Amino acid sequence: MKTVRLVLIGLGNLGRRFCQVLEDKHDTLLERYDLDLVLVGAADSRGAAYDPVNGLGPGTIVKLKMDGGTVADYPEVGRRDWLAPSLVATARADVILEASPVNLEQGAEPGLSTIRTALRRGMHVATPNKGPLVVAYRELHDLAAEHHAKLRFDGTVAGGLPALYIGQRDLRGALVRRMEAVPNLCTGYVMDMLADGTSWEEARRHARDAGVLEGDGSWDLEGWDAAAKLVILANAVLCEPATMDDVALTGVTGLEPDRLQAARERGKRYRLLARAVIAPDGGYELSVAPVPLSPHHPLGGLGEKQMGVVYETDIYGTITAIIDEPSPVPSAATMLRDVLDMYVEA
Amino acid sequence: MKTVRLVLIGLGNLGRRFCQVLEDKHDTLLERYDLDLVLVGAADSRGAAYDPVNGLGPGTIVKLKMDGGTVADYPEVGRRDWLAPSLVATARADVILEASPVNLEQGAEPGLSTIRTALRRGMHVATPNKGPLVVAYRELHDLAAEHHAKLRFDGTVAGGLPALYIGQRDLRGALVRRMEAVPNLCTGYVMDMLADGTSWEEARRHARDAGVLEGDGSWDLEGWDAAAKLVILANAVLCEPATMDDVALTGVTGLEPDRLQAARERGKRYRLLARAVIAPDGGYELSVAPVPLSPHHPLGGLGEKQMGVVYETDIYGTITAIIDEPSPVPSAATMLRDVLDMYVEA
Repeated sequence: MKTVRLVLIGLGNLGRRFCQVLEDKHDTLLERYDLDLVLVGAADSRGAAYDPVNGLGPGTIVKLKMDGGTVADYPEVGRRDWLAPSLVATARADVILEASPVNLEQGAEPGLSTIRTALRRGMHVATPNKGPLVVAYRELHDLAAEHHAKLRFDGTVAGGLPALYIGQRDLRGALVRRMEAVPNLCTGYVMDMLADGTSWEEARRHARDAGVLEGDGSWDLEGWDAAAKLVILANAVLCEPATMDDVALTGVTGLEPDRLQAARERGKRYRLLARAVIAPDGGYELSVAPVPLSPHHPLGGLGEKQMGVVYETDIYGTITAIIDEPSPVPSAATMLRDVLDMYVEA
Repeated sequence: MKTVRLVLIGLGNLGRRFCQVLEDKHDTLLERYDLDLVLVGAADSRGAAYDPVNGLGPGTIVKLKMDGGTVADYPEVGRRDWLAPSLVATARADVILEASPVNLEQGAEPGLSTIRTALRRGMHVATPNKGPLVVAYRELHDLAAEHHAKLRFDGTVAGGLPALYIGQRDLRGALVRRMEAVPNLCTGYVMDMLADGTSWEEARRHARDAGVLEGDGSWDLEGWDAAAKLVILANAVLCEPATMDDVALTGVTGLEPDRLQAARERGKRYRLLARAVIAPDGGYELSVAPVPLSPHHPLGGLGEKQMGVVYETDIYGTITAIIDEPSPVPSAATMLRDVLDMYVEA
């Protein structure tokens, strides 16, 4: 039996759900893989808890957070005078799970610093946080290699869909001629409502109320979220050192509801499509734009809870992968997928 | 740079195409992964060639086979007095690629013996041959573990679709509640023709002429091929020690064209569906049967060159993967995927 000590930074939507998954799956993982996953530390914005001896109860953390509390109130070992940076800098752990919110305006902090510290200390990292990967893809990979640490980030693209794993492993040796992705749910959700005849104002409000859009929604609706995911896909799968500046970006905010309704009448459905198409010089042209998809397009039938990716290759045909993700659990569970990928033999 | 010495057994449809892929990709693989893949030996039903010093030219083998010849006529090192068993028993190689035809009537021979010998000699094995896995899944895995050898068989299910890799790696930790697959092309091809109004006799003939059906077609049309693939999926992904006897099997041979035409008129399309559904006792009920799929089913839109798999899970949502495979190249290239999976760091 191998014990794997985890520290989780960030107890929002994903972090809390990851705790629930860990609580539910602990015994199965022990039985199936001989792995004892122990959460030894956790931090949210108000404090931290750390117990390297007995570990923390993930279920206890779920309860604290569901009640609107903080992990700083964890019995006996919770502390308000400790925050994530101190925990990551000192904890004895095998894997840091970085699940703080994406924050590109602030230079992807605090996630970026957390990941740097963890890798420098030789700890593996699993993160669904796009920010640090978009800002410092190469630097973080070099840092991981230098310290013999693993860096996994399957949850950064298309929720629980293993879009990155499929692209990185199953397409080895291939030339990807074209990659297309619908990498988030929220833009499709809003565009479907507009096509139904809902006004922009109402659609935004509905999406916010349903928890689909965060803040004023501009990160998603202006296409930044899709562009960030495309940048990560391009780096990871296409080995293209792309940044946000390389993406020709058109968001959905300028779309007239009339156009969406007209497309629907012609049997088409708009989706915000992230695309990489090979260029004559061998590089890739990257774009994000709302596109009316026919039902014959591999992603043309995506419903409002579905995301997908298409890889058109030279030797493996065209491979499409789609996820139906009715809740954020699959996105949170990508951290478990990443940890198991580190420790379970292929 | 690492040199990987390959021996390829079987130079039919898949073996020959694998040679072409190796010829085309050698330099890319060297550049991208620092791997020098060298084909040191190859055998077909009439003889073998082996050159541990200089290796064989995969392109030369392609030419020999396209001209209807045998690798026994390979310049200088081809031999008619050597067949696959001698080659596998004596060659100094890192990986044996077993690409002989599936042959369940003959106890999955000669593939099964080839794989046993290779693993006992501590060589890794990559094979798209279903037979040995169906007959001896557990035995071969135990043998591989005992000899610290890797056994990969991604090409056994759904051609070039990484159905097995997705199921084995990306669903780690999950409970798969239901698995559905359209794991071959030929049955859909025939049923689409029947739905078009073609008679059974004509449909069989067309399919044989197009190279879609082999022999009298009964292996595919009676559902054995789909059942074999389901057995492999069940063992590999669901950890269910299933055999062919566990599959409730209905082929397509009994289908009246009227029924297929009526389904199409109702907007549905028949596909031979391989299914595993979790049973109340925790095991799985396995079945293969032709099913009229609505366009809303994740596999309901599959065209005649498409295969797919659906995994309905507890923590990773429902994941669908589909391949568009216009030629057998992706099926052949699975052997490259398997070899790269053995040697390229994740």
